[in-house]
Amino acid sequence: MERRPHRLAALRASLVDSGFDALLVTSLPNIRYLTGFTGSAALLVVPAGEPPVLLTDYRYQAQVADEVGEHASVRIEPVSLWAGLREVLPAIADGERMAFESAHLLHGDFERFADFGGRWQWRGGVGLVEALRERKDPGELQRIRDAVRMAESALARTIREVHVGLTERQVAGILEHHLRDEGSDAPPFETIVASGARSALPHARPSSRELRREEFLLIDFGASYEGYCSDITRTFALQSVNAEMQELHDIVREATLSASAGVRAGMRGRDADAIARDYIEGRGYGELFGHSLGHGIGLEVHESPRLARTADAPLGPGAVVTIEPGIYRPGWGGVRIEDDVYLAEEGPVVLTSFPRELMVVG
Amino acid sequence: MERRPHRLAALRASLVDSGFDALLVTSLPNIRYLTGFTGSAALLVVPAGEPPVLLTDYRYQAQVADEVGEHASVRIEPVSLWAGLREVLPAIADGERMAFESAHLLHGDFERFADFGGRWQWRGGVGLVEALRERKDPGELQRIRDAVRMAESALARTIREVHVGLTERQVAGILEHHLRDEGSDAPPFETIVASGARSALPHARPSSRELRREEFLLIDFGASYEGYCSDITRTFALQSVNAEMQELHDIVREATLSASAGVRAGMRGRDADAIARDYIEGRGYGELFGHSLGHGIGLEVHESPRLARTADAPLGPGAVVTIEPGIYRPGWGGVRIEDDVYLAEEGPVVLTSFPRELMVVG
Repeated sequence: MERRPHRLAALRASLVDSGFDALLVTSLPNIRYLTGFTGSAALLVVPAGEPPVLLTDYRYQAQVADEVGEHASVRIEPVSLWAGLREVLPAIADGERMAFESAHLLHGDFERFADFGGRWQWRGGVGLVEALRERKDPGELQRIRDAVRMAESALARTIREVHVGLTERQVAGILEHHLRDEGSDAPPFETIVASGARSALPHARPSSRELRREEFLLIDFGASYEGYCSDITRTFALQSVNAEMQELHDIVREATLSASAGVRAGMRGRDADAIARDYIEGRGYGELFGHSLGHGIGLEVHESPRLARTADAPLGPGAVVTIEPGIYRPGWGGVRIEDDVYLAEEGPVVLTSFPRELMVVG
Repeated sequence: MERRPHRLAALRASLVDSGFDALLVTSLPNIRYLTGFTGSAALLVVPAGEPPVLLTDYRYQAQVADEVGEHASVRIEPVSLWAGLREVLPAIADGERMAFESAHLLHGDFERFADFGGRWQWRGGVGLVEALRERKDPGELQRIRDAVRMAESALARTIREVHVGLTERQVAGILEHHLRDEGSDAPPFETIVASGARSALPHARPSSRELRREEFLLIDFGASYEGYCSDITRTFALQSVNAEMQELHDIVREATLSASAGVRAGMRGRDADAIARDYIEGRGYGELFGHSLGHGIGLEVHESPRLARTADAPLGPGAVVTIEPGIYRPGWGGVRIEDDVYLAEEGPVVLTSFPRELMVVG
C-alpha cells in the first residue's frame, strides 16, 4: 500500500495546521486507510511528530503484523484497548493538545479521557481523515473499478436466472452467490431486492414476496474489494412493461444520465442534486423523489461528499460519488437508477456501464 | 408483537427507579426491541409517564406505520432527526431529568444537547434497555430457534457441495445462498470461512485460498430471522484426518460439550468461561485459547451477558449465549466449535444440534 506514508504525512500536516499534537483515531475505516489494518477492534494514535501506534487485541495478533508492516508500531492489548492507550500515551505524544474523532467516538468512551489525567487537553476534531479520504488515489480508484466490475458481472448473471415466482430473498441469494464467485467480499451494505409495490420503499429488505408479471424489480447492491465498494441500482420489468412503468423509468433514467454528465468537482453538493431534482420536478414527480441524489463511496458506502439539497460543501476533486435519483409511487412501485461517478479534474467519469434502458427479465 | 407494551412498561418502571423522567434511545436494536421499527435511522423518546415518540425520515414513511402500530407516535422529519427532537421534546417530556444511552451515542451527537436549552439535565444511562433484552421471551426464543434451524439446514446443504479446490470465498457464497433460500435475512455478521493455516486466525475473512486435503475448514456464521440471530461454528476435516487434527478437535469438542452442559443462569460469566478454559488448560493448550468463551445473542450477535475471564456479572435467566472455545496453533490451523444455549431457569437448553464429531468433507 504505497500511498500510506503519504497519507500519514498529509494527516500530520493537517494536525499541525489545526494546532494539535496528536490525533486519536477511533473510526475503523480511517484506521484501515492510514495503516492497512482490517480488523474489527483497534485504536490508533497519530502524533504530529512521531510514528503512529496501533492498539488491537489477541484475535488479530497474526494478521496485524502482515497488514500494517512499517506503517505503525503495534501493541496487542491483553485487557482492553483503552487501558493500553492510557499506558502508552505518555510515551508517544510529546505535547498535550489531543484531537479525537467526535463523529466516531461513543460518549461512554469519551468519558474515559477523564481517567487519563489532567495533562491532556482533548478536543473533538471533525473529519481530518475523512477530508483526505475524499480524494481517491489511483490505487483506490482501481479497487472501486474492480468492485464495480464484480457487481455488474454478478448482476448480469443474476438476471439470466430471475423468473416470476422466485421470492425477493431468493433473488438476493443468487446475486450474493455470484458476487462471491466474482471475488467480492461480503456485501458492503444490505442488498435491496424489492418487487411490485415494495419497490416504492427506498430501503426495502428482500422478503418472501414472489415476483409477479408486469411489475418492477428493483435491485440496489454493491461489491466489496480490498475494502473498497461499489453501489449500483437498476430497476427491471418482470416479463412485461406497461405505459406507466415505461414513463417513470424513462424520467428516472434521464435524471441519472443528466446528473452523471453534469456533475463536476468544485460544484456544491446542492447544485449537483438540483440537476436531477429540477428535471424530475419539471416532469411533475418532484414530491415522489424524497431522498438526496447521492453520496461519496470508497472504504465506506456512505462517505464524503454529500449530494443533497442541504449540502453546501463543494464536491472534492478525485471523489467517487453515487448518482441515484428515484421516483416512488406509494402502494404501486418505484424506480431508482444509480451509477458511480469519478470526479476527475477534467470532468466526470462514469464507472458503471450496466445498461440503463428498461430491461424485461423473468 | 404482543410483548412490546410489556417491554415499554418495564422500561418505564426502570426509569422511575433510576430517577429519570425520560430516556432518549439511540441504539437501533433497542428501538426495534421497544417499537418493532427496523429502519436504519431513528430516535426514540420514552417518557416515564407518556407514550413514546419515534422520529425517523422519509425513506421509512411507508414501513414505519406498519411496523410500529400503536407502540409509539411517529414523526417523519424532513430536515434532521435531531432538529425534530429539539422541537418535540418540550411537548412530550414533563420533567427535566433526561437519560441517554452513553454506549450508543456519538460524542458529536451528545454535544447537540447543549443547543437544546438549559431546562434539561442529561445524564448517561447504562444498559437500561439491554438489561431487559437479556431475558428472552417465548417469541424471541422461537425466532432464535428458527435462526438456528435455518443456519443448520444451510450448513448441511453446503458441506455436501464443498470440495477440495474451491476457494474459501466460493464456500461462503454457497453457504450464504442456502441461508437465503432457507429464509434468512442478510447474515448477522461477516461469515468466516477459513482453511488450513488460516483457520488459526479467529476472525479470518473468506479469501481466495483454495481448500486442500488433510486441512481444517472452519465455518463460523449465522442466520437472521425477524431480527434475531444464530451464531454457529463447526470445524471440518478436508478429505482426510491426521492424529494431530483429531486430538485438537477432540479437546475442543469436549470443552464445548462440558461448558454447554455446565453453564447455568445465575453463574458468573467468569465461572462459565472457566469450565471450558480449565479443561483446555489441563490438556496443555491454555495459551492457544486466547479469546473468551462466549456472549449473549438476540437482536444483536454480541449482546449481554459476557462469558469471559473478566466477567463478574451473573448470567441472567432467559439469556441465550454462545459457547465457543477454540484452540489456534499459529501457522498450522485452528478448531472452534460453537453452540447456542438457552439459559432456562431449570438448566441449560442447547439450541444447536448439528453434529460435533469431526466430519470429513470435500
